[in-house]
Amino acid sequence: MMTVLRLTAPRVYDGLIGRCAGPLMHLARSLSGMTIPQIDEEVAKLLQLKLQLGGDEGKHVFVLKTPKGTRDYNPKQMAIRDKVFKTIINCFKRHGAETLDTPVFELKETLTGKYGEDSKLIYDLKDQGGELLALRYDLTVPFARFLAMNKITNIKRYHIAKVYRRDNPAMTRGRYREFYQCDFDIAGQYDPMIPDAECLKIVYEILSELELGDFLIKVNDRRILDGMFDVCGVPQEKFRTVCSSVDKLDKMSWEEVKNEIVKEKGLSEEVADQIGEYVNIKAGGSDLAEKLLQDPRLSKSKAAVAGLTDVKLLFSYLELFQTTDKVVFDLSLARGLDYYTGVIYEAILTQAGVAPVPAPQEANGSAGDEGPVSVGSVAGGGRYDGLVGMFDPKGRKVPCVGVSIGIERIFSIMEQKAETSAEKIRTTETQVLVASAQKNLLEDRLKLTAELWNAGIKVEVLYKRNPKLLSQLQHCEETGIPLVAILGEQELRDGVVKLRNVASREEVDVSRADLVEEIRKRTSES
Amino acid sequence: MMTVLRLTAPRVYDGLIGRCAGPLMHLARSLSGMTIPQIDEEVAKLLQLKLQLGGDEGKHVFVLKTPKGTRDYNPKQMAIRDKVFKTIINCFKRHGAETLDTPVFELKETLTGKYGEDSKLIYDLKDQGGELLALRYDLTVPFARFLAMNKITNIKRYHIAKVYRRDNPAMTRGRYREFYQCDFDIAGQYDPMIPDAECLKIVYEILSELELGDFLIKVNDRRILDGMFDVCGVPQEKFRTVCSSVDKLDKMSWEEVKNEIVKEKGLSEEVADQIGEYVNIKAGGSDLAEKLLQDPRLSKSKAAVAGLTDVKLLFSYLELFQTTDKVVFDLSLARGLDYYTGVIYEAILTQAGVAPVPAPQEANGSAGDEGPVSVGSVAGGGRYDGLVGMFDPKGRKVPCVGVSIGIERIFSIMEQKAETSAEKIRTTETQVLVASAQKNLLEDRLKLTAELWNAGIKVEVLYKRNPKLLSQLQHCEETGIPLVAILGEQELRDGVVKLRNVASREEVDVSRADLVEEIRKRTSES
Repeated sequence: MMTVLRLTAPRVYDGLIGRCAGPLMHLARSLSGMTIPQIDEEVAKLLQLKLQLGGDEGKHVFVLKTPKGTRDYNPKQMAIRDKVFKTIINCFKRHGAETLDTPVFELKETLTGKYGEDSKLIYDLKDQGGELLALRYDLTVPFARFLAMNKITNIKRYHIAKVYRRDNPAMTRGRYREFYQCDFDIAGQYDPMIPDAECLKIVYEILSELELGDFLIKVNDRRILDGMFDVCGVPQEKFRTVCSSVDKLDKMSWEEVKNEIVKEKGLSEEVADQIGEYVNIKAGGSDLAEKLLQDPRLSKSKAAVAGLTDVKLLFSYLELFQTTDKVVFDLSLARGLDYYTGVIYEAILTQAGVAPVPAPQEANGSAGDEGPVSVGSVAGGGRYDGLVGMFDPKGRKVPCVGVSIGIERIFSIMEQKAETSAEKIRTTETQVLVASAQKNLLEDRLKLTAELWNAGIKVEVLYKRNPKLLSQLQHCEETGIPLVAILGEQELRDGVVKLRNVASREEVDVSRADLVEEIRKRTSES
Repeated sequence: MMTVLRLTAPRVYDGLIGRCAGPLMHLARSLSGMTIPQIDEEVAKLLQLKLQLGGDEGKHVFVLKTPKGTRDYNPKQMAIRDKVFKTIINCFKRHGAETLDTPVFELKETLTGKYGEDSKLIYDLKDQGGELLALRYDLTVPFARFLAMNKITNIKRYHIAKVYRRDNPAMTRGRYREFYQCDFDIAGQYDPMIPDAECLKIVYEILSELELGDFLIKVNDRRILDGMFDVCGVPQEKFRTVCSSVDKLDKMSWEEVKNEIVKEKGLSEEVADQIGEYVNIKAGGSDLAEKLLQDPRLSKSKAAVAGLTDVKLLFSYLELFQTTDKVVFDLSLARGLDYYTGVIYEAILTQAGVAPVPAPQEANGSAGDEGPVSVGSVAGGGRYDGLVGMFDPKGRKVPCVGVSIGIERIFSIMEQKAETSAEKIRTTETQVLVASAQKNLLEDRLKLTAELWNAGIKVEVLYKRNPKLLSQLQHCEETGIPLVAILGEQELRDGVVKLRNVASREEVDVSRADLVEEIRKRTSES
């Protein structure tokens, strides 16, 4: 039905067009002019398709993997994930946030025009009739859509959910195509910098509580960047694109960024050098903002002055929140997304000792490690006062500020910690196993098990007619169940259960009537 | 740029092909031979596209909605959702389950061939280069893929996540295209019917604890259905398709189903009548299984005898689990999915008083209410011993049994209950608002707020320099915050805070040193 193709060079594919029909023609058509890694992916796809068609043997062999850039969470990883979520949710609730949820996909047009150069990374759904849909790229745009749709002008909410980006993931560094974001946002017309300061306080609290080692929160303001570009002579229509070059300063040297600004973005050497003078200023605090307010050129830009004044005010609130030891004002922080309008920030882990966890799937992801990545960025956010207005039919603005905790990297670090630690992670909460040393007691075991379930005790029972006592005890040791309730002929006659402590191996007879109470007492202590 | 089309009949669309270019040609091409609702959707899409292209005015007007068949959850709905999840997760944990998570999309081929006639409802992702992907249709197939991929032969796990079906949703009845499933499954080679009985016990516990009114769990077995079809003279290759007709007995009369079996599935009247004799038998218990084992025709089918014997055994365990009051053996229960191999079950709410909540979006979903739906089905599941083997390169089998709680309908009922109840649902957990009656105390308010946050107290503060005391108290009343910590010049001098009980309006001075303890005491009581 299909011939196997031996390929020596990309252009071999070109000849395919017209020789294949249906989906194959479609594939072949898209192959011309591709890069080697892209070709590898296409080959894999053709071979997958061949397998589906049945090949010569008519057998269906599955490619057993999760999609590129995604992962399963096994029970141990889930236990870690739940712990991280609990810490984060507790913090969000401590700050009085409500929560909401939105669909995993939005109308395609809801996402269009919000992400600048990153829009190409959006996952589109296939047009199967009906609406044109795309997977959410972040939680911020759906939040803005929700506010506009429900005419909400005041809310403090958190949202923890997965988002989707067709990026080339470096999974060893905790970067994926499907990943969780934990967002906290404050919408409403308030006095300047108070909600902004609370967002930074939240990042500070979460990163401290998770004990990930030392961290630093960089702060800047879009208006300062814009003002700076303006006084350096960047034409206004190039602000955003130059911004996205400056954004790369955490992974590239100034020389490389300058090169990009001159060669790719088409600015003169002089303009680039002037930008360099600002973005290479060492990060500081309130004092730096004060100093820049005196800068003869910057002080001529209304936008820059507004931004600098707000940064100064922000630092005064951060002082009251006792967070200034970890926050710096850094003129080189840019952030790529289009929708920011004021303060922006990003938190990074600075401790050198944090090595990435190797991901077993990495071998599959041959087509795309993009090289050095922003090592250690774990949270980011800023003010976006115009986004909700983009959705409102009358353009009514709802000022917003928020922060997003990117926790995949945090999971990676926690998983690595758990692996090297001696502490065993339990993946169940079972308090007691109902067991027997004798045969033919399945019915009695099931009956006791149901009694305990009905009393709210967490119980397991092995699904065998006549399991060996040893295998029942082994199950407890392996899964960390602390107690065994052992039934035998004698115990049934006496109306008791032998309650065994798995760790100490002590056994005592407990009357059936007292069993629930006794289990509760023992498992609340431990 | 585009002419508005006045359409009188579907075939008008045919003429469009070749007259449009680019995406419009694609749209037009797919329009021939469509039904009226489909055409309506296509028209909506064209108009959307027109809006995107800018139309004459060049203005971008957003369609402010969530995709068809999806919904947002506002904070009140989230509070209800969390409560339902907590009940369900507690039950799963009480039964010793671990949890895991899988990506929201899978390789398309992972899903292919698992869902029978329902496969057309799978959401495909657009081919943007790379792998062919589709959104998960349920949590069972990803679970089987996970087991095969990780060579796991024994696990008891729960998984709560959203699944996706391009169905025509009846949202008033809690049916959506994006909806949650709460799955509990037991994988492993065990003695018959013990894990199966635990799954039914779990459904029993959850539906009882959620207090949704009376319910009934119907049980049957695929092998009994197959044996019955066999002895009635249905050719084997038609077992599945007849099964999916019988599956409609909960929403259609036997006459309609018979009609489908004869006219659409091509069986004779006699064969259909014979099937009718069985599926119209009144539901029973262990006694019915016993009676059917004596049935001269059924007893000739090995499959039927195996199924009936297991159903009898299942009922004996359900007796020990004290659940037989809500479980019936019902020969008319079929269930559509292809992968079931043994026991199947479905839980329905039987209380008449449970009316559906009207969904505000229903007006948009004009194109598709399919009419009467299975009213009140809230859980279903069964045994699928072959599914994992389909993924294993060597076909190794891992027997599985599980249950899926479909909770959108449960949410609807709970939301309705909440609306009619006088009890106010809180959407935050804030314990105290830091407030002031005087001006110029923002800094002091922020400082106290941070002190309390640092002590783990849930605190809010209004983001205004000088808010009115009245608006601060109103915020507490509206959101249910029980306490206000009021600061004034005098209090600051005295080193105290005026702690006000919002409900009783009582105020006492509490020394700053004792404040945390006092707030904890008061909010743990209430």
